[in-house]
Amino acid sequence: MQEIGVETKLVAILGDDVGHSKSPSMLNAAFREKKLNYYYFPIDVKPKYLADVVRGISKMNFAGFTLTMPHKIEIMKYLDEIDPLAEKIGSVNTVKIIEGKLIGYNTDGEGFVKSLEIEKNIKCDENIFFVIGAGGASRAITTTLASRNAKKIYIANRTLEKATNLSNIIKEKIGYKNCIPLNLGTDNLIKYVKNSNVIINTTNIGMHPYEDKSPIDTSFLRKELTVADVIYSPDRTVLLQAALEKGCDVINGKGMLLYQGYIAFEIWTGLKAPKVAMKEALID
Amino acid sequence: MQEIGVETKLVAILGDDVGHSKSPSMLNAAFREKKLNYYYFPIDVKPKYLADVVRGISKMNFAGFTLTMPHKIEIMKYLDEIDPLAEKIGSVNTVKIIEGKLIGYNTDGEGFVKSLEIEKNIKCDENIFFVIGAGGASRAITTTLASRNAKKIYIANRTLEKATNLSNIIKEKIGYKNCIPLNLGTDNLIKYVKNSNVIINTTNIGMHPYEDKSPIDTSFLRKELTVADVIYSPDRTVLLQAALEKGCDVINGKGMLLYQGYIAFEIWTGLKAPKVAMKEALID
Repeated sequence: MQEIGVETKLVAILGDDVGHSKSPSMLNAAFREKKLNYYYFPIDVKPKYLADVVRGISKMNFAGFTLTMPHKIEIMKYLDEIDPLAEKIGSVNTVKIIEGKLIGYNTDGEGFVKSLEIEKNIKCDENIFFVIGAGGASRAITTTLASRNAKKIYIANRTLEKATNLSNIIKEKIGYKNCIPLNLGTDNLIKYVKNSNVIINTTNIGMHPYEDKSPIDTSFLRKELTVADVIYSPDRTVLLQAALEKGCDVINGKGMLLYQGYIAFEIWTGLKAPKVAMKEALID
Repeated sequence: MQEIGVETKLVAILGDDVGHSKSPSMLNAAFREKKLNYYYFPIDVKPKYLADVVRGISKMNFAGFTLTMPHKIEIMKYLDEIDPLAEKIGSVNTVKIIEGKLIGYNTDGEGFVKSLEIEKNIKCDENIFFVIGAGGASRAITTTLASRNAKKIYIANRTLEKATNLSNIIKEKIGYKNCIPLNLGTDNLIKYVKNSNVIINTTNIGMHPYEDKSPIDTSFLRKELTVADVIYSPDRTVLLQAALEKGCDVINGKGMLLYQGYIAFEIWTGLKAPKVAMKEALID
């Protein structure tokens, strides 16, 4: 890399344990490709220090930063502006700094849905989605699907209450009425899966230490389904492996990561993302 | 350079306009030579943002930082501990961070005096010093000379009052009584220069836009003198050029910069500085 000078625009990923993030190599490849004097690097930040670090960064030559666990909600206190979609999702994972002003975005849902739209040619308003989980990732994805007028969204969760809450939030924030909360344990799930076109796992079932588990009974799968997983390590979760064996079209969380990277690059630089260079860096 | 990771210890130079500082290349050469995962880079900081930037940095993975104009005095408000010599000098240019605690040092005087001692074999307690200027650099150098029991220190300044003030501060802080304040314009300077062994220019006379000026009448010089200048650009000021022509031993501000670099490296890493690598980087 080029040495960092006073003109270099810095970008960071702030999290509690971000040493293994793939974002720096992806974004730095983009900056190199576009010959931009930007540099992206990871910073571990304890929750109690988030305010101080963000205030300091905003007075240095940073173009912005990415937030990951556990800072996505706490950060909202320190922003000057919040993008309407991020406001609806209730969390921020990308901040742009303009002359010391902090503007928050959420690219989680947008990145995921774009990867479905572009890589798998899924049109939101023509499909019924079966989303597993009702946590932060689910909220970002279902809010984005709803704001794009998905035909219907099932939200299946281990505790029905959380799924119901999320459905209500989406109704309230987006005015979208076609969310159906389901209990992942006890409802007669097969009926709803049969009615769906796209399955999306937003839970950690399928990654370490649950790498030998699937979040739903894989016998429900049929080859007409598109099956997506936010997990990208392992590359193929038990769910995706079973879906492949049934002949489904599948996509893992790398697509989400990549499309989030494209969006973040465009937020920070105002330029079109160099997609090939970024994809190559992510695959390496 | 190696990519910056969460394990990388960062170090920065904070100033109002530090884009041309030679410290980053010198210190980064040292870190590479010692195979240390440290990275040093410049950050422009406006005075009103110093507190925020320093608070932020202290919560990130920084080993410390360097301060240059105009932050050397203001920074003292934000430190947890101040080294006794820095306290006496009344300013801090090097901070070490240990578990979020900030400890301030001043290496200006020490760097300069060490360069004289080692490169020019000058023993403080055997010499009489004629120091031109009574500002921050002069205070650092004269305080250090006094704390090493210089035989006598003349402090010659355009306004006598500032020289007198500095003499009094040194008397009060160090208990050193052999400072003689002089008026650079009106005193019969040649008498004091004749009585001195080492001339030190601490003013900006000799650098742009005063590159064609000498801070004292160069006809006062004689070949037995050692003549030092804190300026390193140009390499040879009018004063040093005249001194060379008289056959004096001369040293410019690069020596000070280099020895300050050695000291800072030792403060931040606790290791002996790789002097050859640092000198080569500075000369490049």
